[in-house]
Amino acid sequence: MTEVLVKDLFGKTHFAESEEVVLHGWVKTVRGSKRVGFIELGDGSTIKNAQIVMKSDIDNYAELTKLPLSSTIKVVGTVVYTPEAKQPLEVHAKEIVLEGASDNDYPLQKKKHSYEYLRTMAHLRPRTNTFYAVFRIRSLAAFAIHQYLQEHGFTYVNTPIITSSDSEGAGEMFRVTTLDMNHLPKTDDGKVDDHEDFFKKETNLTVSGQLPVEAFALALRDVYTFGPAFRAENSHTARHASEFWMIEPEMAFADLQDTINESEALLKYVVAYLLEHAKDELDFLNGAVDNNLLNRLHQTCDEKFAQITYTQAIEELKKAPVDFDVPVYWGLDLQAEHERYLCEQIYKRPTFLTDYPKEIKAFYMRDNADGKTVAAADLLVPRIGELIGGSQREERQAELAQKIKDYNLPQEEYQWYLDLRKYGETPHSGYGIGFERLLMYVTGMENIRDVIPYPRTPGNAEF
Amino acid sequence: MTEVLVKDLFGKTHFAESEEVVLHGWVKTVRGSKRVGFIELGDGSTIKNAQIVMKSDIDNYAELTKLPLSSTIKVVGTVVYTPEAKQPLEVHAKEIVLEGASDNDYPLQKKKHSYEYLRTMAHLRPRTNTFYAVFRIRSLAAFAIHQYLQEHGFTYVNTPIITSSDSEGAGEMFRVTTLDMNHLPKTDDGKVDDHEDFFKKETNLTVSGQLPVEAFALALRDVYTFGPAFRAENSHTARHASEFWMIEPEMAFADLQDTINESEALLKYVVAYLLEHAKDELDFLNGAVDNNLLNRLHQTCDEKFAQITYTQAIEELKKAPVDFDVPVYWGLDLQAEHERYLCEQIYKRPTFLTDYPKEIKAFYMRDNADGKTVAAADLLVPRIGELIGGSQREERQAELAQKIKDYNLPQEEYQWYLDLRKYGETPHSGYGIGFERLLMYVTGMENIRDVIPYPRTPGNAEF
Repeated sequence: MTEVLVKDLFGKTHFAESEEVVLHGWVKTVRGSKRVGFIELGDGSTIKNAQIVMKSDIDNYAELTKLPLSSTIKVVGTVVYTPEAKQPLEVHAKEIVLEGASDNDYPLQKKKHSYEYLRTMAHLRPRTNTFYAVFRIRSLAAFAIHQYLQEHGFTYVNTPIITSSDSEGAGEMFRVTTLDMNHLPKTDDGKVDDHEDFFKKETNLTVSGQLPVEAFALALRDVYTFGPAFRAENSHTARHASEFWMIEPEMAFADLQDTINESEALLKYVVAYLLEHAKDELDFLNGAVDNNLLNRLHQTCDEKFAQITYTQAIEELKKAPVDFDVPVYWGLDLQAEHERYLCEQIYKRPTFLTDYPKEIKAFYMRDNADGKTVAAADLLVPRIGELIGGSQREERQAELAQKIKDYNLPQEEYQWYLDLRKYGETPHSGYGIGFERLLMYVTGMENIRDVIPYPRTPGNAEF
Repeated sequence: MTEVLVKDLFGKTHFAESEEVVLHGWVKTVRGSKRVGFIELGDGSTIKNAQIVMKSDIDNYAELTKLPLSSTIKVVGTVVYTPEAKQPLEVHAKEIVLEGASDNDYPLQKKKHSYEYLRTMAHLRPRTNTFYAVFRIRSLAAFAIHQYLQEHGFTYVNTPIITSSDSEGAGEMFRVTTLDMNHLPKTDDGKVDDHEDFFKKETNLTVSGQLPVEAFALALRDVYTFGPAFRAENSHTARHASEFWMIEPEMAFADLQDTINESEALLKYVVAYLLEHAKDELDFLNGAVDNNLLNRLHQTCDEKFAQITYTQAIEELKKAPVDFDVPVYWGLDLQAEHERYLCEQIYKRPTFLTDYPKEIKAFYMRDNADGKTVAAADLLVPRIGELIGGSQREERQAELAQKIKDYNLPQEEYQWYLDLRKYGETPHSGYGIGFERLLMYVTGMENIRDVIPYPRTPGNAEF
């Protein structure tokens, strides 16, 4: 008897009709008449189920036809190819052993459930086809990103999660503490004594690994982070989570156009990887979630992305025959409605916007010669809006020191960041990808909560 | 003119003597006499430097021979092969442009610095050979782990960092909060009102992703986490950090011996991957840090690991002609001194210990039939002690519910974890690897702070 996986049945191996196979898995559906019964068996190795056929003379036939969904069983049988039928093969069972019965109140019965309802059972929803597909794609996309970057000589760097600095001088942060909140130590002036805390100072959860990873780019040249980041914003949109993952590549001796080219190449690689390795999952999602998904992914691979300046984008938006909720003017921090109009209605594909007004961008971005804009580039994609944000970093020591002053950032906290320039000014550039936004783009899911295993949003930190 | 990387020079491409190449990089050393000068140029693409030869008739020769270390330069020149010399080639410079001078107080001058001193400049230490090698190996080891697991059908799952539960019912945790510590909201009885906090309850940083990832193993079969974990212990040893990364594979339909076999195969794969892809880095560390490193790694690949029960290990330790600081008895939670004695002195290789007393292991481990031990296995390795901890999980609903009671864990908080059994009892097993301990093993570094880009330990959260 050969122990096999369901995916082996659909693979290249041919099973002889006399060959007994053993399968372990979960009952996805079951039905039975007087003479014959059918179990769809899933074992997690593929989104497909094996069709198990049991004749009524099998042991415990009556009991087996009433198995609660999600029961764990062992099947011994033979593979029978059925090229004329809907599924290419069946397993004719000789023996079925119930290894762990599921209770009858299993909440994921055959009927379609809302995503909202499924979010209340994040521990069970991976057992549905939709979430099986989403989380397989999440895994494959993560690996594709690592593979692309490693093959291109990038070094993976784990920047710190707990940090004593605020990476962008903006963004609300979560505090990390071991102080007893009911008995806080105080200083003489009645404030909390942060020196008594675990790290002897106030610490927070990181909002970005960019600044710490720049130090590594200036030693290892091409580097990237891929880790969790946090925003303590009381935001309840479908595109924001309090805990999310980011990829932040950073390249020494690279300018803004290099980051544009690199990020486009990476995105295309990931999509092509999924089209090859997640075929079943994408087919399923294209049918069940978003009928335009496969079209969009093929187009992403095949077409060169658009590239315009922010200033051109503002001109286009002003000409648009649309009443935006937020009126358009040069200097506006574009909203999702503007971003989506540009890439969905005007350019009809992923679109890079470059050279943003310096007032709406971070202090570390390199000033352009016009004195008004910085060397920044965001990638806008249909359905999502901003997916990638990149920039050339200010590598000139004097200019950076001035910007730290202009932005009222504490000079001493950024001395290490200035040191990176003090000991060799090196042009460098990088970009950040919100991993969950990428997943929304490649799965068709519309809510960020549905591409995260256990989503964290204001008021929600279950499991 | 061809833009090249230093690693290209040492690669397979042959450069014609007439072919002009352009290099960008950092000055690692510089020396010059009246007639000729030499710069060792590194650009981060390899641990090796390119030898730049400049004749005294080059522009700014006098200035170039006095360049501060770590200055950024551009070199235009031709490649000259020197098969008789120590380095296989030189670049004869036609032009050298100073792109960004380093200050003269660059702290990493040629002399050898202590690791303690280098920790105070975590932003600059990747520019040293030792940390370049360590962090390249960190990146390659992470990728090898992903590649092995993906090729074996495992799905990568990002379990949550912020959690409202305590994964093991033990271990000190960091609290995550957005409450204003100087103006805490209070309930009627004067306690902090956690309901006013960001997630409407008390939340902490995860100590392990195992429990949440079990839910995915019971849907996707073979899964793994690879992410940060946190321990708020006031521990100052060379083996403990407050923030570290863990790999936690979890397999449905697998028993304890499967985790032992799988973890041995993964570890061997990673070591073999490094021997192939980090040859230069390992050679360097074998010379500069640990002369036994390459021996140990080859042995790890070649020899089957030892495997004994905890009970056998206690017998061996009792017979040992050594006075341990902590006396040995059956039931003892082994200390590093015992673990290292077993794998270094007795078995002289990585050693699995199995079937530990249930009192010293976690509630979720499956009871053995003897009523005294659980199906747990730890891997002990020379120099480090415990590297991997695994177990078969208690999949029986009734037994698990009883254990949750016996360990005085809050029943309602673990209901979701019981649900995983309620809806189909499925045998499953898994293990956890401390990524930094693995890195100490494969680099020869002796302090965990020296294999983490920005280490976090009690009192230290700089950068």
